[in-house]
Amino acid sequence: MTETNYGFTKLTRNPLKDCPIEAALNLIGTKWSFLIIMELMIDGTLRYSEILRNLEGISPRTLSAKLKLLEESKIISKKIYAEVPPHVDYSLTEFGEKLEPIFLELKKFGITLQN
Amino acid sequence: MTETNYGFTKLTRNPLKDCPIEAALNLIGTKWSFLIIMELMIDGTLRYSEILRNLEGISPRTLSAKLKLLEESKIISKKIYAEVPPHVDYSLTEFGEKLEPIFLELKKFGITLQN
Repeated sequence: MTETNYGFTKLTRNPLKDCPIEAALNLIGTKWSFLIIMELMIDGTLRYSEILRNLEGISPRTLSAKLKLLEESKIISKKIYAEVPPHVDYSLTEFGEKLEPIFLELKKFGITLQN
Repeated sequence: MTETNYGFTKLTRNPLKDCPIEAALNLIGTKWSFLIIMELMIDGTLRYSEILRNLEGISPRTLSAKLKLLEESKIISKKIYAEVPPHVDYSLTEFGEKLEPIFLELKKFGITLQN
């Protein structure tokens, strides 16, 4: 195991299978998954149709697949309303809320790109 | 524009094209790109062959494509050594180093997954 001081903190080399960063990315590691989580962080609860509308460019098929994966990973939860017409909404779980610091850092970096 | 207080901080809704989080993800938004950056954060400078070996499962073609994109985005820089045999190494730019806080948060979250 190699350790290097890089800047103000220490990242540690792990075999890739034991790497916490890879573990995190295995759960959230696509742009669409990040953006779905971001939507729910901003709005708390959203219907499927609202997420689809907000994420310009995502296909309904991709959205459904990503939502299913995020639900299986316990990052989001789904609530089904047996109304007429029926609808489904999504929100972050308590576990999913733990992702917020990652998004704040992504946002800070993204702002430097835009300035 | 909607603003919601979510937990201890504020995320702001932007049209997706103006969203800083999307801007950040457009630069680094695949798992392999994240992991390449992570490798360079840990080791400072790495040869192509070292990155290929460390990132188990990446194909040489994908690695080359991702390195090219990261270089075009000014996140990494390439140095070519006109030796025999010639070799190429990669390191983060000063700009790329600004990504470190994102990785530290990914790491913290990843550790919670592993415990």
